[in-house]
Amino acid sequence: MFKDATADEINEVMQQSWNAFHVYRKMNLKQRANFMRAIAFELENSCVDLIPVAMKETNLAEARLRNERARTIFQLNSYADACERGEWLEARIDTAIPDKNPPKPDIRKMLVPLGPVVVFGSSNFPFAYSTAGGDVACAFAAGCPVIVKAHPAHPETSELVANAILNAVRLCDMPKGIFAHVHGASFEVGKALVMHPYTKAVGFTGSFIGGKQLFDWANQRKEPIPVFSEMGSVNPVFLLPEKLQDAAMDIARSYAGSITLGVGQFCTNPGIIIGIQNMYLDIFVAALKEEIKKVSPGEMLHTGIFKSYVENRGNALAQEGVEMVAVSDTEPMINQGAPTIASASAQAFLTNPVLHKEVFGPYSLVIRCQDMGEMIEVAKHLEGQLTSTLMATENEIRNSGDLVEAVKNICGRFILNGVPTGVEVCLSMHHGGPFPATTDPRFTSVGADGIKRFARPICFQNWPNDLLPDELKDENPLRIWRTVNNELKK
Amino acid sequence: MFKDATADEINEVMQQSWNAFHVYRKMNLKQRANFMRAIAFELENSCVDLIPVAMKETNLAEARLRNERARTIFQLNSYADACERGEWLEARIDTAIPDKNPPKPDIRKMLVPLGPVVVFGSSNFPFAYSTAGGDVACAFAAGCPVIVKAHPAHPETSELVANAILNAVRLCDMPKGIFAHVHGASFEVGKALVMHPYTKAVGFTGSFIGGKQLFDWANQRKEPIPVFSEMGSVNPVFLLPEKLQDAAMDIARSYAGSITLGVGQFCTNPGIIIGIQNMYLDIFVAALKEEIKKVSPGEMLHTGIFKSYVENRGNALAQEGVEMVAVSDTEPMINQGAPTIASASAQAFLTNPVLHKEVFGPYSLVIRCQDMGEMIEVAKHLEGQLTSTLMATENEIRNSGDLVEAVKNICGRFILNGVPTGVEVCLSMHHGGPFPATTDPRFTSVGADGIKRFARPICFQNWPNDLLPDELKDENPLRIWRTVNNELKK
Repeated sequence: MFKDATADEINEVMQQSWNAFHVYRKMNLKQRANFMRAIAFELENSCVDLIPVAMKETNLAEARLRNERARTIFQLNSYADACERGEWLEARIDTAIPDKNPPKPDIRKMLVPLGPVVVFGSSNFPFAYSTAGGDVACAFAAGCPVIVKAHPAHPETSELVANAILNAVRLCDMPKGIFAHVHGASFEVGKALVMHPYTKAVGFTGSFIGGKQLFDWANQRKEPIPVFSEMGSVNPVFLLPEKLQDAAMDIARSYAGSITLGVGQFCTNPGIIIGIQNMYLDIFVAALKEEIKKVSPGEMLHTGIFKSYVENRGNALAQEGVEMVAVSDTEPMINQGAPTIASASAQAFLTNPVLHKEVFGPYSLVIRCQDMGEMIEVAKHLEGQLTSTLMATENEIRNSGDLVEAVKNICGRFILNGVPTGVEVCLSMHHGGPFPATTDPRFTSVGADGIKRFARPICFQNWPNDLLPDELKDENPLRIWRTVNNELKK
Repeated sequence: MFKDATADEINEVMQQSWNAFHVYRKMNLKQRANFMRAIAFELENSCVDLIPVAMKETNLAEARLRNERARTIFQLNSYADACERGEWLEARIDTAIPDKNPPKPDIRKMLVPLGPVVVFGSSNFPFAYSTAGGDVACAFAAGCPVIVKAHPAHPETSELVANAILNAVRLCDMPKGIFAHVHGASFEVGKALVMHPYTKAVGFTGSFIGGKQLFDWANQRKEPIPVFSEMGSVNPVFLLPEKLQDAAMDIARSYAGSITLGVGQFCTNPGIIIGIQNMYLDIFVAALKEEIKKVSPGEMLHTGIFKSYVENRGNALAQEGVEMVAVSDTEPMINQGAPTIASASAQAFLTNPVLHKEVFGPYSLVIRCQDMGEMIEVAKHLEGQLTSTLMATENEIRNSGDLVEAVKNICGRFILNGVPTGVEVCLSMHHGGPFPATTDPRFTSVGADGIKRFARPICFQNWPNDLLPDELKDENPLRIWRTVNNELKK
């Protein structure tokens, strides 16, 4: 239905994006923010057919999609606010000291946009991490034009959202080329976009294989460029004994919900639950088993994801020392993911890297440790994670310094007594983490700090006040926070 | 004299560094800052033999080395101050909203150290970008242990500075392994350090070939890690006609000084000067010629750099359309770099990539453009640069929007009416730039913002106040600036 972009079309798109970059980056923060708000408005008001189309293409439920659209709108509006507040610009001013030896010149620094950003839509967030999603909002706030590569699993939804953005482009009189929408089921389209000399950064949310490939391509360019790939993780949950003794049943109930939420198709899905073998762990596992049996299989996002789930789940269950604990009582139909809990000893886990890999879907592996020492060993052997969770009493936290330190090493978000699913959109959120959770642990894809992925500092030395950008003028006409001679002020 | 570290020694060093990481990162900002100040004190007071040893190893003059040591001490002290002020932590707090649907948890974020950082000493800054240099100071401020690979051109100087650091380690009771010093003339030592699983980031200042190789190795790791390589540039200078008419002689004089400063061995050395062909450009070139003839050749840092200079200069001068304009009147002796100015037409430059490459040493190429259009073409064809300079009147800046935009695309520091040599150490400095000036345009290696190269965010969700790090506690015991519910406050 949608044809892959040709090499010529990609060149044309990138040329227009490059041209638009020179216009858009000169627009002020208010203009950028208003453009983002106009996109939010279009998403909310113009696209009457968005939800049913997305339901058809993704198998996601109406309520979930309405919530996700609301979240997408909130992202656009809240990053627009952050864009306008301007703290992300990291404006710094050091005024001249002419009688220093040698004289110190006036130097002023701020972040400026990197240039055209290519964003790859994700399959599991057709709104929030796709065509008008978080990466796109961050790039627009930074002052970058965006080229979206539609996810081939929901091209029609993507096309409708693209139209909403293009409406906002017209309404706000933005330069042609500030936004482009490209289809491509083949990897060549993605590769051509990443390799194009006018592309200056890449944003991606999806699988490890996809995200790592983009990262490798970008580093093989003549001019390597920054890639932020968010590639998911297993989001380990550590159950400490005292806490389990207090609340095994409640924890089982809330984790059954978290594991199966959205048919387990979240990058923050808890894929590994680590406990210490005792009576309360048995109670927890028994309760989890009963809960999971009650959850019906749900239709997965698309056939590819379903097939991968069947294969990866099967492979995990076939590993030595892995036992099936529970599976949904309801037989799954074609394309449905069956909620599943397996279990293995810490020793089996520590010696088998297959068990460390994400099984994307409603699957979780309970790891039974002999003692705290083994639990710490498991934490030390885990790769980088978006999140890690401790279920623990305050007392246990205080007495488990080594575990806390080991977990800190591997995660971006450290949750205490909660579930990892549910990613709050706010400035303090960090949705990132050490590799392989992402390709750069220093950046986030949720929250307005994500803008900084797409901006770089430039400093102006010895420029007269009225030739400086407004952000750096003496009189601070934008009233933004700036560090002036090492002091933050407005 | 100094033996290359063996694979076993490197493993041992990295294991100790990893152990030290877990101790040092828990030390508070004041402890880190005091450690850095102790290093500065040791550099200033204990190492009586530092300067003569460095003179012998680098051929740099005493005054230059004394200044560089003073700058190194200033860096350590001023980054220590920045470390303690804590703005670099980017502390963000969003307090809970329990009655939101779903309830919003309490989330708090701050930067934490990445882990052990490997720093490669540079040859041209034996103090300021070597063993106790900017990268090392930034890593210590971030909370990272450091492993320095000594530059093989000044191993003894490096060893003395390492001893000063180790004295500070003892005086401040820092963990063993917080600092290690490794020699290695072969590339295997560097590769083993970059590839080691406990290495979490790399800092480098030097040649393109060296810096790009480290970047490639780091990306080929099972777990890719951030590399900041500062690889120099040609630092183009654009001479606009009106300005030249006003001050051709003065500009020639100051550029003759900048081109030959430190025998041209600065990464900010102006290697390309672009003018528009007219009478005033001729006056400028004639004056530059006279000035350059008067400058005596100076001894270069080491034989390798001297040989490269002879070869690269010879190669540049042999290109079609390149004319020799001036060379020092004094015959250079062995290991001395002869100050040299060449010239070429914009057309010759635009069609020959060899002329775009840095000739590290006291060499600059004057490019003669037919008109402003050609000057803009030259700007558009330049690769990423640490600095770019406009010599222009205010009037010319206002009327040269396209040139200004083209130059903005390529540089990290944009200088007006000055020379690029001389890099002020302050928060507003950006010493970085698009590839190939550095491997990541989003970071700097000069100024306290360089700390952020070695830190990553972590967010704490739903932690009780007294289990949070001090930086994030409600009562803000460190009195640092934090963004609380989207508002900056102290």
